Amino acid sequence: MTAQVTRSDASAVGLADDADIDAYMNRLGQAARAASTVMRRTPTGPKNAALAAMASRLEAARGEVLAANDRDLSRGRDNGLDAALLDRLALDDKRVDAMIEGLRQVAALPDPVGEIDGLHYRPSGIQLGQMRVPLGVIGIIYESRPNVTLEAASLCLKSGNACILRGGSEARESNAAIAACIGEGLADAGLPVSAVQVVATTDRAAVGRMISMPEYVDVIIPRGGKSLIERISREAKVPVIKHLDGVCHVYIDATADLDKALAIAVNAKTHRYGTCNTMETLLIDAPVAATLLPRLAAAYAQHGVELRGCSRSRELLEGILEATEEDWYAEYLAPVLAIRVVDGIDEAIEHIERYGSHHTDAIVTEQYGLARRFMAEVDSSSVMVNASTRFADGFEYGLGAEIGISTDKLHARGPVGLEGLTTRKYVVLGDGQVRQ
Amino acid sequence: MTAQVTRSDASAVGLADDADIDAYMNRLGQAARAASTVMRRTPTGPKNAALAAMASRLEAARGEVLAANDRDLSRGRDNGLDAALLDRLALDDKRVDAMIEGLRQVAALPDPVGEIDGLHYRPSGIQLGQMRVPLGVIGIIYESRPNVTLEAASLCLKSGNACILRGGSEARESNAAIAACIGEGLADAGLPVSAVQVVATTDRAAVGRMISMPEYVDVIIPRGGKSLIERISREAKVPVIKHLDGVCHVYIDATADLDKALAIAVNAKTHRYGTCNTMETLLIDAPVAATLLPRLAAAYAQHGVELRGCSRSRELLEGILEATEEDWYAEYLAPVLAIRVVDGIDEAIEHIERYGSHHTDAIVTEQYGLARRFMAEVDSSSVMVNASTRFADGFEYGLGAEIGISTDKLHARGPVGLEGLTTRKYVVLGDGQVRQ
Repeated sequence: MTAQVTRSDASAVGLADDADIDAYMNRLGQAARAASTVMRRTPTGPKNAALAAMASRLEAARGEVLAANDRDLSRGRDNGLDAALLDRLALDDKRVDAMIEGLRQVAALPDPVGEIDGLHYRPSGIQLGQMRVPLGVIGIIYESRPNVTLEAASLCLKSGNACILRGGSEARESNAAIAACIGEGLADAGLPVSAVQVVATTDRAAVGRMISMPEYVDVIIPRGGKSLIERISREAKVPVIKHLDGVCHVYIDATADLDKALAIAVNAKTHRYGTCNTMETLLIDAPVAATLLPRLAAAYAQHGVELRGCSRSRELLEGILEATEEDWYAEYLAPVLAIRVVDGIDEAIEHIERYGSHHTDAIVTEQYGLARRFMAEVDSSSVMVNASTRFADGFEYGLGAEIGISTDKLHARGPVGLEGLTTRKYVVLGDGQVRQ
Repeated sequence: MTAQVTRSDASAVGLADDADIDAYMNRLGQAARAASTVMRRTPTGPKNAALAAMASRLEAARGEVLAANDRDLSRGRDNGLDAALLDRLALDDKRVDAMIEGLRQVAALPDPVGEIDGLHYRPSGIQLGQMRVPLGVIGIIYESRPNVTLEAASLCLKSGNACILRGGSEARESNAAIAACIGEGLADAGLPVSAVQVVATTDRAAVGRMISMPEYVDVIIPRGGKSLIERISREAKVPVIKHLDGVCHVYIDATADLDKALAIAVNAKTHRYGTCNTMETLLIDAPVAATLLPRLAAAYAQHGVELRGCSRSRELLEGILEATEEDWYAEYLAPVLAIRVVDGIDEAIEHIERYGSHHTDAIVTEQYGLARRFMAEVDSSSVMVNASTRFADGFEYGLGAEIGISTDKLHARGPVGLEGLTTRKYVVLGDGQVRQ
C-alpha cells in the first residue's frame, strides 16, 4: 500500500453514483479490520512518526487544502448554507496552524496502549493485571467541521485503532485534501494507509452500512446535532459512544461565597453560549436569592443574556419572562438562562434529576457536608463543587484532546480522550500453574 | 413498601394470562428506576445489613425454598427436561448452604461505590478525579439455575444498583421463593424492596419489553445459551454485556518446559469440560510435537478425551480423526480436543486470530520475547503465559464473585464482578475557579 492509493481513494468523491455502496463500505471495513491488527501491534515510535509526518504533509499541502476548502465554501454559499455552518466549515491559516499544533500535542501524549495496571499475585501463584489495548476499528460520523477529520484520525492512530471517517458532504473536498495528507503521513512512517480511511461517497446509505457491520467496526462515535445522534443510536448494530444533551445546572447554596457564586454563574453562562457544558438553568437557594439575584441580573444584562424565571425569582427581578415547563428542559445554546429559587439542596438535586441531562452540574457552597452530598448524589458525568461547568472538557481535564463528551454510562462517561478509545484485557503470568 | 408486597409480587406467577405484559413490565421498570436513586445513595452499612438479612431469611425459609424447588423439579420431569437441565435446576441443602455463604462473601467485598481515583490538581487550580458510581438499573436474563437469582441480586445490591431478574420458566417456583427471601431481607434493612424485582410472568413477551425500555433499564446481562444471547443482543434497545463463545487455545512453544506444558494442557482441557474457559484447541510448535504429543495423547486417553488432529499431528498420533475446518471453530464443551502442529508463534497467533473467540488464550514458553509478544499481540479478554486457561474466572481473579464473563470489548472485558456493574463520573473540586 502506498500514498498514491490514498490519494486516489480520497479523490473518488462521487462514487455515490456507483450504486454499490454496500460493497464499497465492506471493502473499507475489511481494509480497516486488516489495518487494525497491524496498528494494535505498532509501537509508540512509528505512531508518533506518522503524526509528525502528517503535520509535515499538511504544512506542504496547505495551499491545496485551503483551495479545496474554498471550493467547499463557495458551493456551500451557492447552496444557501447559513453563516454558522459556513463558519464551522471554513479553514484559514490560523485553523491549519491549530490542526498542525494538534498533531504535535497528540504525539506528545503518553501512549495508553500496553499499560498494565495492578499486576499482583493471587493465592494460586499466578500474577494478574489488566493491559490497556485498542478497541480495534472506530467509525466516526461527523458534520461540517473539516478539522475533525485530522483530530479524529490522530486520536485513533495514537490509541492503536484503525478508523473509518465519514464527514459532512458540505466539507467533502476539504476532507479529501486532509485525507490525502493523512495517508501520506501514514505511508511515510511505514504504516498501512488504510489505518485511516475517509468515506469517499456522500451517499447517506454509506452511513447506514457503516453502523451495521459489527464484523468490521467495533464502535461508532457520532459527532453532530441531536437528530443525527438519535438516528444513529436507534439504527446502529454496533455499540455507540454518544453525546446527547447538555442541560447543565449551577446550584448556589445559602452558604456560598457570593463573589465566587457570581463569578461562576456568569462564567458558566457567558464564557461560550453554544457549548454543551454551558449552564442552562441556575438554581438559587431562597435565603440568598434576594441579595444575589439583582447582582446576577445586572451582570447578565451586561452580556445581553435573557432571563426566564420561576414565580419567586420574578418577585425579585422585575420584567423577566416566566419560565415554562419547557424552559427547565431546554438546552438553549444561546444567551438565555432559566432561573429558579429553591429551598435547599434536596429541592435542587430533585430539579437536576428531573430536568437535567446528566452532563455537568455544579454546586457553589462553603459547607463541607453539602459539597459531599452533591458529589455523591448527583448522577451526572461531571459533578463540580465551586467551579464553572465550562471546565468539563478534554483539554481542561488534561486528556490532551477529546473525541467527544459521552453522556452514556457504559464504557466512557464524560470527556472521551485516548483512554476512551481503548479497553483493558486481563493478563496472567504464571510459572506452570494449573487450577485445582 | 413492605416485605408483604414482595411476597405477593413474587407469587403473581401466571400473570402471563393477563395480557398486559407491557404495562406490567413498565411498572417494574418505574419501580426499579425509583429504587435505583435510593440505592445509589445507600451507604455500605445498610447494603451489607440487607445481605446478612437475606442470608437469615433464606436460612429460615430453607424448607419452603426446597419444597418450591421440588415442585419445579417434578414439573420439569413431567415435561421431559433432560438430566443436565434438571441438575442445574436442582437445589439441595448443600447448594442452599453455598448460596448463604455466597451472600456472606459479597458482604465481605469492598464497596466499589464512591471510590475516587486519581484526584489531582490541574493547572487551572481545579482538583480532578473520577468517582465510581452504580450503573442504575440492571436487567438480568438467565435460564434454569435458581441460585443465579440470589447471586445476581447480591452483586447488584452491593454495587448500588437496582435490578430486574428474569429467570427460566422451569425454575419459577424456586425463584419466587428465593425472591421472597430477598424482599424480606431488603425490608429488614430498611431498603426499598423494589431494588430487586423478579419478573413474575414466564411470558416471553416480558423479555422483549425488558430489553426495550432504556428509560428504565441501563444495561442488560443475558446469561445462558448462545441462541438466547444472540437473540437478546440483536433485539435489545439497551446496552448488553454479553458472553458468547469460549474457543480457547493453548500454544506450546518449542522453548516450553515440557512438564509445565503437559500439566497446563491437561488441566486446561480436563479440569472441567463444560466451561467457557476450557481449552478447545491445542497448538503445538513443530520441534516439540514428536516428543510431547505422544505423552499428551496418553494423558488424554486416561481422561477419555477424543483427539482430532491436523495432518501433521496425525502422523505422530495413530488412529485419531482428522480435524475439519469446523473443528477449529468448535466450542466442544465436551471431552474432545482439536490439535494442530504449527511452525512457531506467528502461525499460532494467526490461528488464534482466525478461529478463536477472543476469550482466553495461553502460551507455554520459557522465552521472554515470545511471552511478551503473545501478551501484546493476542487480542483476547484474558491472555496467559504458563498458566491454565481455567484461571479465567471471577473467583480466581479475586473479584469475589462474577456475574458473567464478557466477550465484548466495550465497558467490561473478561470476568465481570462488582466493578463491571459500576461506571465512573468525573468530580471537580474548586475554590471559585472559572474558565479563562
